[in-house]
Amino acid sequence: MIVQAATTLGVLVTVLDPDPHNPAVGAGAEALVGDPSDLGALRALADAVDVVTFDHERVPLEHLRLLEGEGVNFAPASGMAEMAFDKSAARHRFRAEGFPIPDFVDVRTAADIDAFAASTSWPVVIKSSRGGYDGRGVAVVASEAEAAAAADLLGPTMIAEEFIEFDQEVAVLVARGRRGETVAYLPVTTLQADGMCVEVSSPADVAPELVRTAQELAVSIANRLGLVGVMAVELFVVDGRLVVNEVATRPHNTGHHTIEATETSQFEQHVRAILGLPLGSTTPRTPASVMCNVVGGPDGSDPADRLLAALAVPGAHVHLYGKHARPGRKLGHVTALGSSADEARAAARLAADLLAGVAVPAGAEK
Amino acid sequence: MIVQAATTLGVLVTVLDPDPHNPAVGAGAEALVGDPSDLGALRALADAVDVVTFDHERVPLEHLRLLEGEGVNFAPASGMAEMAFDKSAARHRFRAEGFPIPDFVDVRTAADIDAFAASTSWPVVIKSSRGGYDGRGVAVVASEAEAAAAADLLGPTMIAEEFIEFDQEVAVLVARGRRGETVAYLPVTTLQADGMCVEVSSPADVAPELVRTAQELAVSIANRLGLVGVMAVELFVVDGRLVVNEVATRPHNTGHHTIEATETSQFEQHVRAILGLPLGSTTPRTPASVMCNVVGGPDGSDPADRLLAALAVPGAHVHLYGKHARPGRKLGHVTALGSSADEARAAARLAADLLAGVAVPAGAEK
Repeated sequence: MIVQAATTLGVLVTVLDPDPHNPAVGAGAEALVGDPSDLGALRALADAVDVVTFDHERVPLEHLRLLEGEGVNFAPASGMAEMAFDKSAARHRFRAEGFPIPDFVDVRTAADIDAFAASTSWPVVIKSSRGGYDGRGVAVVASEAEAAAAADLLGPTMIAEEFIEFDQEVAVLVARGRRGETVAYLPVTTLQADGMCVEVSSPADVAPELVRTAQELAVSIANRLGLVGVMAVELFVVDGRLVVNEVATRPHNTGHHTIEATETSQFEQHVRAILGLPLGSTTPRTPASVMCNVVGGPDGSDPADRLLAALAVPGAHVHLYGKHARPGRKLGHVTALGSSADEARAAARLAADLLAGVAVPAGAEK
Repeated sequence: MIVQAATTLGVLVTVLDPDPHNPAVGAGAEALVGDPSDLGALRALADAVDVVTFDHERVPLEHLRLLEGEGVNFAPASGMAEMAFDKSAARHRFRAEGFPIPDFVDVRTAADIDAFAASTSWPVVIKSSRGGYDGRGVAVVASEAEAAAAADLLGPTMIAEEFIEFDQEVAVLVARGRRGETVAYLPVTTLQADGMCVEVSSPADVAPELVRTAQELAVSIANRLGLVGVMAVELFVVDGRLVVNEVATRPHNTGHHTIEATETSQFEQHVRAILGLPLGSTTPRTPASVMCNVVGGPDGSDPADRLLAALAVPGAHVHLYGKHARPGRKLGHVTALGSSADEARAAARLAADLLAGVAVPAGAEK
C-alpha cells in the first residue's frame, strides 16, 4: 500500500525481499531479491535508491547503524528503528523520556519472572525483546509453571510487564516530516483478538480531552524520538489515563482506514514525510469509519473466491493483498465510512465476514 | 489506474505493450511485451488471462472479431470496440439507434467536404474515421482551401460533421455489468483546450432535468450497445438539448475525479463490471469536485520536480503517471473535493498549474 501511494505520486520504489513475487512487487515496486537481514543486500538496496524505509522489523540494527554511518538515508533513522525492533530498548527509552508505560523489567529466566510477579502480582505479560508481531512473541502468564513455559518459548531476552486491566485500547497515528513538522490523525478504538487487531473504529470512543491528550502524547513521542515518517502509538485507556502499549514506526494496521476515510492516507503521508514533501491533511471525510481485517480461516480457503458476495455490500471498500491464504494470516481488510460508527461497522463487518467465509451472502440462506 | 484498482481487489493484471516499462507495469501489472495490433501477441495475451479489456483504441477490429469467434472473452466486446475505434461506424450505429448526434456524412475528398458544407454551412468538422484522440485526427475547416488541407492530413476515410455551437460540454460516465445492470455517475462539465480536456467539474452545471436526461441517454446507449465495463459519453448542451459528441468505451479522463470524489472509482467500477462482480455506488463524497489535467509544458520539464510545491496545496490530490515528460503530453492530474465547485477548482487548478510550472509557489514571488 506504500507502493501504491508512491506510484500515484510518480515516485519509484524498489523493494528488498527474498521473494521476487512479493505483494510490493505486485503493486509495482522494482524487485531486489535478497534477505533484508543480509548486509550486502541492504547495501545494494541503499545504492539503488535515495531513501530507505521499512514496512517490517526484520532488519538487524547493527547493519542499519553501519550503513547510516556510511551516509545511507534511512527514514525513520536507526534510532527509531531500535524502538520498533527491540521492545526492551523501547521500554527503557520511554521510561527515560518520562512517557507513561507499564511497569516492566528485563528478564532472562522463569525465576526472573517469578521475582517480578512477587513484587507486583500475577498475571504478568512476557514479551520477546525482538521479533514479535500480531500477538506472536507475547504471553500472559499467571503462575510459576506458566512462566517457565513462556521463558522456554520466548527467551532468552524478554521483558516482564505488569498486566494492565484496561478499559479500552486506542491508537494514534502521527506523521513527522524532515523539518520537524507533525500531523496527528484522530485516535481510533482498536479491538484485538488473540493479540491480533480485528477491528479499528474511527474516531475513538473516548472523551474529547482524551483525544487531545492522546494526540499530544503521540506528537511528543515523535518529536522526542526524532521520527521521520508515520508512527502508530498503541495506548491502553485505564481510568481515563493513557498508558503506552506499543509503537510501530511505520504505516500500521490501525491506520488502514485512512485510505478512504481521511484526506491523506497514512501511506501517502509516509511517502511525503520520508521524501521531505509537505505533510497532508488528516481531516476525516465522514463522521465515522470502521476497518475490519480479513484473516485466513481454518480451512485455508481464499477470500478472493468470495469477492462477489463482499462487493455486494453497499459502502464496503475491499482490499485483498494477493497473499497466499493461510489460517490466521492477514489477507486483506475492509473499510466502510458512515455517519455513525454503527453504520460503518455493519458494512465493514459483514463484508469482512463474507470474505472470511464466516457469514452467508444475503439470499443464500436455506 | 485500472491496475491499481484491480490490485487492491487482489485481481492480477497482464498488460500487452511494446514497452516492458509502461505505466501499467509500474503499477504492478505483469508485462507481456508485444504489439496490441499483432494477432499473435493478442492471442498470447488472451491465453494468459480470463478477460481482456482495453485502455486505448489501437487494436485492429478484425483481430478482435477473429479471437472472439475462438471464444476469447473481450469486455467490452468487439461490437463495442468498433464504436470506439471507428468514428464512422459509431456515427452510423448511433443514427440507426436514434441517438441525438450531429448531422454527418462519410467523406474521402475535399470535394466531398465542400458538397457537405454546401448542404449545411461552413465551418465543418472533419474527423479521421480511426485513430484520433486528444484532439488529434480532428480539424474544423471554414473554406474549400482548409478542407483540402484537412483531407490531405486526415484522409482518406473521414467523416464531415456539422459544427455545433454548444453552450457547454458535459460527460456522463456509465457502467454496465454482465447481467445488464447499470449505474450512472453524475454528469460533469468538461473544459477543452485545443481538443484536449483540461478540466472536469462535478456535478455538471446544468438543470436537474438535464442531469436525469443525460444519465438516461448514457444508460440507454450502454444498453443498446451491450456494454460490459465503463463508458464515457461526451455530450454537447445546445439550447437545453443534448447531442452526443463522442463515446469512449473504457475508463476515461472525464472520470478521473471519481478516485477520490465518489464511493467507487471508475477504475474499480470497470474491474467489477468486466469480472461479473457487483457494481459499486456512484454517490459523490462531497457536494463538488474538480479535476485538472497536468500537461507537459513547452520546456519539456518534469512536473515531478515540482511535487513539493503542489503537495503544499491543501486538499489537492496529486496523481503523476510516471511518463516521460513531453510538451503537450498528459503527465498527471489533480483532483480536489469541496463544498462548492469554486472551492474545489481553486485547489485543483493551483496544484495543477504548479506542477505544470505555470504558477509560482506561495512565498516564492520576488
